[in-house]
Amino acid sequence: MAREVKFRQQWSENPGSPPPFAQPAVQLGEENMAEDANAVESLWEEVRELSLGNSVERLDSPPSSLDFLRRFVSANKPCIISNAVSHWPALSLWQDHNYLTRSLSDSLVSLHLTPDGRADSLVPLSSGSLCFASAHVERVPFPRALQFVLDSSSRKSEGASTRDPSIAYLQQQNDCFREEYSALSGDCDPHIPWATEALGCPPEAVNLWIGNHLSETSFHKDHYENLYAVVSGEKHFLLLPPTDVHRMYIRDYPAAHYSCDLEGGKFRLEMEEPARFVPWCSVNPYPSPETKKVEVSKFPMYFNGPKPFHCTVRAGDILYLPSMWFHHVRQSPDERGCTIAVNYWYDMQFDIKYAYFNFLQSIHHRPRSSRNRLEDLDEDADEDEDE
Amino acid sequence: MAREVKFRQQWSENPGSPPPFAQPAVQLGEENMAEDANAVESLWEEVRELSLGNSVERLDSPPSSLDFLRRFVSANKPCIISNAVSHWPALSLWQDHNYLTRSLSDSLVSLHLTPDGRADSLVPLSSGSLCFASAHVERVPFPRALQFVLDSSSRKSEGASTRDPSIAYLQQQNDCFREEYSALSGDCDPHIPWATEALGCPPEAVNLWIGNHLSETSFHKDHYENLYAVVSGEKHFLLLPPTDVHRMYIRDYPAAHYSCDLEGGKFRLEMEEPARFVPWCSVNPYPSPETKKVEVSKFPMYFNGPKPFHCTVRAGDILYLPSMWFHHVRQSPDERGCTIAVNYWYDMQFDIKYAYFNFLQSIHHRPRSSRNRLEDLDEDADEDEDE
Repeated sequence: MAREVKFRQQWSENPGSPPPFAQPAVQLGEENMAEDANAVESLWEEVRELSLGNSVERLDSPPSSLDFLRRFVSANKPCIISNAVSHWPALSLWQDHNYLTRSLSDSLVSLHLTPDGRADSLVPLSSGSLCFASAHVERVPFPRALQFVLDSSSRKSEGASTRDPSIAYLQQQNDCFREEYSALSGDCDPHIPWATEALGCPPEAVNLWIGNHLSETSFHKDHYENLYAVVSGEKHFLLLPPTDVHRMYIRDYPAAHYSCDLEGGKFRLEMEEPARFVPWCSVNPYPSPETKKVEVSKFPMYFNGPKPFHCTVRAGDILYLPSMWFHHVRQSPDERGCTIAVNYWYDMQFDIKYAYFNFLQSIHHRPRSSRNRLEDLDEDADEDEDE
Repeated sequence: MAREVKFRQQWSENPGSPPPFAQPAVQLGEENMAEDANAVESLWEEVRELSLGNSVERLDSPPSSLDFLRRFVSANKPCIISNAVSHWPALSLWQDHNYLTRSLSDSLVSLHLTPDGRADSLVPLSSGSLCFASAHVERVPFPRALQFVLDSSSRKSEGASTRDPSIAYLQQQNDCFREEYSALSGDCDPHIPWATEALGCPPEAVNLWIGNHLSETSFHKDHYENLYAVVSGEKHFLLLPPTDVHRMYIRDYPAAHYSCDLEGGKFRLEMEEPARFVPWCSVNPYPSPETKKVEVSKFPMYFNGPKPFHCTVRAGDILYLPSMWFHHVRQSPDERGCTIAVNYWYDMQFDIKYAYFNFLQSIHHRPRSSRNRLEDLDEDADEDEDE
């Protein structure tokens, strides 16, 4: 009889035993906008309570393709897989920079140069308004490019000079691992077998990333399922689910490019002509002590809402970074001064989840609460929650 | 270079090449409510354009578990699988009613009796308001119960009498196939192997349904992944995705039960005491010619919005009816006068899709358009779109 009651309740949505978190439809009336706003904030909490929990799940070994698809891809939920790529020759071979420079002695690779390590980030113009600035990119022989990354790290540590201000980051999200770095292809798996099986297609792009402790990527999302493998050093991710889109304060910014000469000339920031506008996340999650108060008051939904998911991905680990998740990335270098990672972008499905996301994004929302969490911020700043 | 442009556009959401159907965030201002309303209607269209298409996909043979999970469960998208259960002994054995009555000669089964074939449906009270009426349910030996289903069909065809008005439907959504009908368990697979593998668990309930041409189930949704196999006759489904929740006009109705004696006494409709309210879909998709105009004007979002998905599931077919989809069911009997089906309820994941659904349901929405599609209705009424 208990069983019968259970099934009937499911069937008829008996309000005596509602499914978890079922919400009654908002009634007609003048309060609708306020109630819709509450609905947005309830969504932030609910997706955590229902599905995501408070931290990124860590698996001890690669999941089966079915398990990965069911528990993570379908649920649009991240996970970290420990020791997922420990078998790659890259894990040991790439510790030796001589091996890398020998293997790639003839390869031209894309070197990204910025004054501060931040490419694709928001930069203030002299007018005080912000632009979306891309790095100066130059194709350079790999041995020299790697030296730039290592030098720019140590130079910056010793204090920047005006003559030689550039921070170098080796990266290019255009399938660069299979193109610019093809000489290294034998050192990593060409794809992640259980992910390829789950997603039903080979990766659309494979990218290599060699940065130093100053390299930082601002909050953004990608329209790919992302399998992110760390080979050396550590990557530190801040993650927010797509349900939290309003907390990112996505605004249109005019596009600009850095320009400099390779030998340490000064950077020029050039606005694109004709003007082009790029929608980008406005939030810097790590404001300086001087700007923190202003940033918190400008972006209260980010700073006062549920904490973002922090996670650290170590050498040998893979992070599954689901499509549409907002992510901010920093890194800790290995003992030789750099962080090396390879990521696999697989096509995402543009299914009901994507339609819901677009709907959510199109809903106007202003924060309900203006309480300030400045005190908490200080405590949380360096916390990693997946440990 | 084309490739680079492609990847950079994905990365930065270059507005020169937006992802399909990306919608800009609604601007601040007094128009927000109207714009949010448009967002709801855009969602109805977008999920069809992105993912669902205009009809239910029909597969020639069972999919692999991975394919099923990726293309249908994860995408929350229905499909019909032809000849999915043609190998069941039930397909031939159950054509013979003597076989059924012999096998179940000692079994007590749950017989649902209503005046019109509609259980769990909205019924007008003498006050003119509606209640949610459940069938009179009685445990009856199977041979007699089956005779009721067959007799009530033919009786109704000859015109109802006041003395003997009941329409019988053999069903009980409490795992009845494995309990009341366990004597038949060898005639069907105990679960659907590729679905069990995909969903990672055995079915939570298996139900048998034996109805006649008058049996009808009103629009509702279940919190289960549903694999619905037809053994004899045909089932006709109208389906609406969860994104269309506002079009169902879910309202709270007071619960009532039919009561009658088995030998054809009159039905009494008894309100539950203490009063209990059941949220239920208000729309009857097949109003009578006399009430059509009124119904269309009461439920314009249903009748003026995108057409529901029609599909017919034939003997040997399985319909995958995803969790949270609204469905309305009618049936055509086999030559012996009944329709027999077995359905498998698997636990659903309460993941980001469910959180999005609850959010959507909590958003107030009133229709933008009041145009009337009465003319189209006449054309569409008996159309099946999956052929």
